[in-house]
Amino acid sequence: MDDAGASLATTMSAMGAQAREGAMALRLADAATRTKAIRAMAEAIGSDAAVILAANARDMDAAKANGVTGPILDRLMLDEARLRSVAEAVAAIADIPDPLGQETARWTPPNGLDIARVRTPIGVIAIIYESRPNVTADAAALCVRSGNAAILRGGSECIHSNLAIHAAVAKGLEAAGLPASCVQAVRTPDRAAVGMILAGLDQAIDLIIPRGGKSLVARVQAEARAPVLGHLEGLCHTFIHAAADPVKAQAIAVNAKMRRVSVCGATETLLVDRAGAKELLPLVAQALSAAGCELRGDEEARTLFPMQAASDDDWTCEYLAPVIAVAVVDDVEGAAAHIARYGSGHTDCIVTEDAGAAERFVALVDSAIVLVNASTQFADGGEFGFGAEIGIATDKLHARGPVGAEQLTTFKYVVRGTGQTRP
Amino acid sequence: MDDAGASLATTMSAMGAQAREGAMALRLADAATRTKAIRAMAEAIGSDAAVILAANARDMDAAKANGVTGPILDRLMLDEARLRSVAEAVAAIADIPDPLGQETARWTPPNGLDIARVRTPIGVIAIIYESRPNVTADAAALCVRSGNAAILRGGSECIHSNLAIHAAVAKGLEAAGLPASCVQAVRTPDRAAVGMILAGLDQAIDLIIPRGGKSLVARVQAEARAPVLGHLEGLCHTFIHAAADPVKAQAIAVNAKMRRVSVCGATETLLVDRAGAKELLPLVAQALSAAGCELRGDEEARTLFPMQAASDDDWTCEYLAPVIAVAVVDDVEGAAAHIARYGSGHTDCIVTEDAGAAERFVALVDSAIVLVNASTQFADGGEFGFGAEIGIATDKLHARGPVGAEQLTTFKYVVRGTGQTRP
Repeated sequence: MDDAGASLATTMSAMGAQAREGAMALRLADAATRTKAIRAMAEAIGSDAAVILAANARDMDAAKANGVTGPILDRLMLDEARLRSVAEAVAAIADIPDPLGQETARWTPPNGLDIARVRTPIGVIAIIYESRPNVTADAAALCVRSGNAAILRGGSECIHSNLAIHAAVAKGLEAAGLPASCVQAVRTPDRAAVGMILAGLDQAIDLIIPRGGKSLVARVQAEARAPVLGHLEGLCHTFIHAAADPVKAQAIAVNAKMRRVSVCGATETLLVDRAGAKELLPLVAQALSAAGCELRGDEEARTLFPMQAASDDDWTCEYLAPVIAVAVVDDVEGAAAHIARYGSGHTDCIVTEDAGAAERFVALVDSAIVLVNASTQFADGGEFGFGAEIGIATDKLHARGPVGAEQLTTFKYVVRGTGQTRP
Repeated sequence: MDDAGASLATTMSAMGAQAREGAMALRLADAATRTKAIRAMAEAIGSDAAVILAANARDMDAAKANGVTGPILDRLMLDEARLRSVAEAVAAIADIPDPLGQETARWTPPNGLDIARVRTPIGVIAIIYESRPNVTADAAALCVRSGNAAILRGGSECIHSNLAIHAAVAKGLEAAGLPASCVQAVRTPDRAAVGMILAGLDQAIDLIIPRGGKSLVARVQAEARAPVLGHLEGLCHTFIHAAADPVKAQAIAVNAKMRRVSVCGATETLLVDRAGAKELLPLVAQALSAAGCELRGDEEARTLFPMQAASDDDWTCEYLAPVIAVAVVDDVEGAAAHIARYGSGHTDCIVTEDAGAAERFVALVDSAIVLVNASTQFADGGEFGFGAEIGIATDKLHARGPVGAEQLTTFKYVVRGTGQTRP
């Protein structure tokens, strides 16, 4: 390791040690203190708007100079309206019921002990993310709400915006008497810092959350020496069963694909039950086409509606664009088999008026969110009533689906006795 | 890779693919079928007793020839009484309420969707364990109860016993019409098989559970490419607060240390509040000493009761023997600081009649199980009413504390709509 590398290692190691102290301060802070800090963060984002927007302009200039365009440039961009939404989202997190200290179970086994399962913070959470600067604010607020210290490492393309928002976050902590170590931001764009976070900063990190593209998540899951709460892609399916209501089928398919094509809950593949395909496929395909969606179908789908031929890659492609793959399958079992083979365990929907078929689909499909007769675009922490989320977990352990403040907690068993010894 | 290695890789890869099929069969099997399989396993262990004991005799002979003695040899040993307990433990798992399909939450947000959080199996669980052959039976029964396919890899020193018990498990599956792929055992002692399991068997494994000594757990946590539910050591503390009832303090300390010294819930360090040490330390130390326990104290403890001097290593040593380290600390805060520095996040106890001190201890100590006025030896799935456990998790994610059938499940959100699209 060269001198710069050694110096960075020292900085990052100190950040880990400080985060442990921040975690202890948050563990001991009451709900009102944490609420006060989050409200003050929202206010500081508002009062620092000019500074934050100036910082964002520097990031935008650099990005344009690097040839960044289109949706990636747009994700980076802040203006007054967007910054107002960022502040509002933070303020909304202040209003979420405080998860800490909640008893999720309490019972007395035959030994007479009073056993309670109580929500507690996880400890220190590192969030590694790309582009959208609002993640800095959301992650800080959700971690404080759930009593966790945060180490934030945003993308280098967004570093000035992130550090300006982090300065507002720090003001919020200070206003509530909480130490700056509760939410720290990595101040260097040096990618070696990411490697050090993945290595766990001397076991200071309890959880790593990657939020970004497939390659970021894959790198984190491959290299991390601490637990990871992963959000892989959203390869979501909408299955039109033979007993679907045609009007609902059209409305749900169009909304699931086209409402916003760039979100992880957008449907990427339309599955149609062979038994009803002759009637339903052209109806739904026509509605999608009329909404501006390109269709790519398997052989059978193409006999029922004019569309391009799908290649094998289409079944596993998260388009995030106005394109949908279309396959004809055999009943619920065929749909479930397709989803098991190609899906990402995120969100999948059946449209049917047949309650038995719906329950079979629910039983067979092993995804975080299984919907009956509703758009896959409901896969969102806000729509679930969680207030805000830091992502949708597609792993099966700990948290699955939208990850809000409650999902950033763990628990401990508090056992109260009266002197019991074990026979 | 040589021919044998390539052949093993093929075998292990096939085992992973079969486990996926077993997991689907279990996902679709109803509770009664899984109960029937577990009961039939218990019966087959009983009726195969002669075969299992003969297999165990081969393992014992080999172990003795390798110079194995003492507690390790004893852990390996089965006799009729022990095998009867193994069968009874399996039968008891058949009686645990079935966790699958349970709704743990159900609500309707403003969008009108009916959202339910429903327990589901995790999928395929690999259990890597050492010595005790009863783990083969317990793990098989707990996995079937929770709807998970199991891949079992026991220690090579125990392979004949494990495979004989696995044969009884397979009979149980067959009796209930479940495929053998639901519970598979690795049939080779080749350690390369462990590496392949840790690599995830082509992403067939959803969770790895190591159960064994520190070096096994450390290897699994370092190498695993799939999520791990880890059980590190049980470095448990009993803290005698100044306001402790002296009689309870003696009884709890002696039970916590001496009831069984080899279990993970055994107390390894006694902490005594400086404010009450003059009276309480000699009383408790005397009781421990009279029970046959060796004491190793810090300087202050040694002025209050004759004992050996503790070295720094004593604070982090999981003795699993009739030895206890003794330190004098300042109040609850001093005890919590000692536990944070040296503990393993497993189980820690305060003995006090002061409710405020108890609550401060509960808030400050971040361990899976925090006890007030009861022996740390209650850290056990059976004592918690979980029926059986596969270990005590000291990680903070997913499951913490005793891991029974319920803790081997995940959940999915089942969302029922009436045609909702998202605005």
